[in-house]
Amino acid sequence: MPPYRLHSFCQSGNAYKVALYLNCSGIAWEPVEVDFFGGEARKSDWRDSMNKMGEVPVLEADGRRLTQSGAILTWLAERHGNFAPANADERYEALRWMLFDNHKFTSNYAVRRFLKCFAPNAPDPAVLAFLMQRIEAAFALTDKHLASQPFIIGKRPTIADFSLAGYIYYPEDETGVDLARAYPAIHAWSERMKSLPGWKHPYDLLPGRYIAPAR
Amino acid sequence: MPPYRLHSFCQSGNAYKVALYLNCSGIAWEPVEVDFFGGEARKSDWRDSMNKMGEVPVLEADGRRLTQSGAILTWLAERHGNFAPANADERYEALRWMLFDNHKFTSNYAVRRFLKCFAPNAPDPAVLAFLMQRIEAAFALTDKHLASQPFIIGKRPTIADFSLAGYIYYPEDETGVDLARAYPAIHAWSERMKSLPGWKHPYDLLPGRYIAPAR
Repeated sequence: MPPYRLHSFCQSGNAYKVALYLNCSGIAWEPVEVDFFGGEARKSDWRDSMNKMGEVPVLEADGRRLTQSGAILTWLAERHGNFAPANADERYEALRWMLFDNHKFTSNYAVRRFLKCFAPNAPDPAVLAFLMQRIEAAFALTDKHLASQPFIIGKRPTIADFSLAGYIYYPEDETGVDLARAYPAIHAWSERMKSLPGWKHPYDLLPGRYIAPAR
Repeated sequence: MPPYRLHSFCQSGNAYKVALYLNCSGIAWEPVEVDFFGGEARKSDWRDSMNKMGEVPVLEADGRRLTQSGAILTWLAERHGNFAPANADERYEALRWMLFDNHKFTSNYAVRRFLKCFAPNAPDPAVLAFLMQRIEAAFALTDKHLASQPFIIGKRPTIADFSLAGYIYYPEDETGVDLARAYPAIHAWSERMKSLPGWKHPYDLLPGRYIAPAR
């Protein structure tokens, strides 16, 4: 089987979710850099051939192009077994947390970081404050959850952990959140994930150059 | 089997996703009103017994309490077969669109409506404008998609359609979007969904009183 090809760039925590899963699973993959900040994913031919949602990551597998990190993780776990939920109840829990991740955990955290660090125009402070409020609600709830169990759905890491871990290793000057101080249980969980064989920081795992935060 | 009990209220499009699925499937269910605006879902005993994410809907089924509309829809379709994806490829597509729904389609649309209509304090206009920009990107992409096929993943409605349909029947004075004018393909799809036996408007299907938009 040829290695998976992951269209990605190092600022995308959504691409990192899949890259980290593959790396920690020991599955062969290679990155294909997307020039996101150069507008590649907004071009209509990229959208037509890669992903009409205009989003990274795209995983090339058996001639197919798979998109949406949560769906890709589910597909990979079903195929390879690594970090797969063990039964129907665990599958439910993993799906529940991946939906929550997309709805409230990753989403606002990623968007706020993008506006703060990479958007061409300075964002409205009211928008940053609004997003921080939403982040705080989702992170407080997740911190409480992770204070009672080591991983998202129980005692061992599953695809749900890779989903929620997408953006948590980016530094505080990008995210505006000091995880260790504000959310100690999330921080402790992020350290547990870090100890998995194959773990790498997104800036070491994915292609593209580092960009200093604009603000 | 006793009927499902759906903890819900009529302003929650996320509850409506599940209620509409059950109603259009001819599956017995009964609503249990949640006094969301009275703060019931923020109380710690409600969170502890119902849903620690503090979210509606909660579906009581066989003594279990299931949460997250997308996970509930997946569980119901696996159990009853109605509106289920037909094979592995369709399951992938349905999951992909339900994640997109949570990430970008329902989420910003629902939050903006909440701030505009039901939040105690008037929201910052910059926040409303920011959310509208995000809504427009997600809706334009979905409109283009639905111009090429009648339902979200193909020729017949599946759980993905019920997920994206959560908030689309709320009136323009709540959402700030004239669907028929701005997104004709989404509007045409919403009319196709309306013609399903069992379809009802959220204000007729779910418990609670109508609240006029505050702004």
